[in-house]
Amino acid sequence: MDLYFSPLACSMATRIALYEAGADASYIEVDPKTKQVLRDGSDFRPINPLGLVPTLRTDDGVILTENAAILQYVAERFPDAHIASDNTTDRTRLQQWLCFIGTELHKGLFVPLLDRKAPADVHAYTLKKYLSRLDYLNSHLEGREFVLDHFSVADAYLATVLNWSMATPMIDFKAYPAVVAYLERMRKRPSIARAMAEELELYKAEIARHKAAA
Amino acid sequence: MDLYFSPLACSMATRIALYEAGADASYIEVDPKTKQVLRDGSDFRPINPLGLVPTLRTDDGVILTENAAILQYVAERFPDAHIASDNTTDRTRLQQWLCFIGTELHKGLFVPLLDRKAPADVHAYTLKKYLSRLDYLNSHLEGREFVLDHFSVADAYLATVLNWSMATPMIDFKAYPAVVAYLERMRKRPSIARAMAEELELYKAEIARHKAAA
Repeated sequence: MDLYFSPLACSMATRIALYEAGADASYIEVDPKTKQVLRDGSDFRPINPLGLVPTLRTDDGVILTENAAILQYVAERFPDAHIASDNTTDRTRLQQWLCFIGTELHKGLFVPLLDRKAPADVHAYTLKKYLSRLDYLNSHLEGREFVLDHFSVADAYLATVLNWSMATPMIDFKAYPAVVAYLERMRKRPSIARAMAEELELYKAEIARHKAAA
Repeated sequence: MDLYFSPLACSMATRIALYEAGADASYIEVDPKTKQVLRDGSDFRPINPLGLVPTLRTDDGVILTENAAILQYVAERFPDAHIASDNTTDRTRLQQWLCFIGTELHKGLFVPLLDRKAPADVHAYTLKKYLSRLDYLNSHLEGREFVLDHFSVADAYLATVLNWSMATPMIDFKAYPAVVAYLERMRKRPSIARAMAEELELYKAEIARHKAAA
C-alpha cells in the first residue's frame, strides 16, 4: 500500500490510521506547490489529476482519492485495529463526523484561513460563516474522550485538522476549551505523536526547499 | 422516517434517494433563513444545533445529520433500490465521489458563489481555486451515464448540486459539455424530475414569504 502525502496536510490522518493499524505501507512525499513526487521528481498529476493528497494505491494497484473514503477503506482493510464501527448506526455516525470535519471544518473554516494569499475579505467572510462550527464541536467534545465512543479514523482526521490551529491565529481557541483539551490529549497518543513529529521535520524541509527555490 | 429539508437545498438529494427507494417518509420543511419548521413555527435548532438540512429522523428516532452520511444510510436501509455498492472497492469509490461532491463542488465551489451577500473578492477567489474541479468532473463523465456504473446516491447528490448552476451565471458551463449533458439526462429521470418540480414550487413560495417579511 502506497500513501501519497504532503507534510502536515490532511493526508496525515491516513498515516495516523495506518500507524494505529500497524500496517505495512510506503509513504511517498508530494510537494504541494510543484506537484512533484519528491523521491524522483516525477509529476504527481497522472496519478491524481487534481494533484491532491491523500491518494492511496492499494495492494491491488487501485488508486483511491478523497480523505473520508481512504480513511474508511483503511479502517475496513484492518478490522483488528477497530478504528471504524461495525453496526449501521455507529457507521452512519462515523460517516457523519467524517463529513462534518471534511466539509465544515477542513474545507469551510481552515482552507481559506490557511491560504496566506487569500484576500482579507475571504478571511473575514470565512470566520463569520464557519466559526460557529467550533461551538458545535466544543459542545460535542465536552465530557468525551473521542469523537465517537472509542478512537476512530474520525479522531485521526479531527486531530490533523485541529493541528492547523498553529497557523490560524485569527481564531481565538480560548473560547473552545473542550476542543483545546481534546487536541492536547490527541497529540499525546503514540500514533499521532509519531506522525506529527515525523511530518513536522518534513514540513520544515519543504519550507526550506521553497525558500531556496524562490 | 422524517426528512427535514429546505427547497432545492442539498437535502433534495435525500428526497431523490427516498423516491428511488419507494420509501415511506415525511418531508418537513425548514425555512433556511429563520430556521423555523414551517408547519408549526417551531425552532429547528434543538433538532440540529447547526440548523442545517438534511437532517433525518430514523424510524428508531435517531437523528442523523450530514448529507453523505444520510445518503449512505438511506441506501443501506433500502438495499433493494441498489443505490449504493456492495463490495469494498465500489463502496470506497462511492464514498470517494460523495466526498468530492461534498467538499470540492458543494462547499468549495457552489456555496460561496450562491451567497449573494459574499464580497466580490470571495467570488473571484472561489472561481480561481475551485473551477478546475469541473474539468475533472467533465473528464470523468465523458462516455458515462452515471457517476458510478449504475445510478447511485452520488448521482442524487451531484444532480442536486449541479442544479444550482441556474443561479451561478459566473460559471460558463459551455466549457463542460459532459457535465451539461449529464445534468440534462438526470433532470429527466423520474425521481429527480419529480423532486425538482415539487421543490421548485416550494422554493418559489419561500422566496415570496421572504419578500413579504422584508
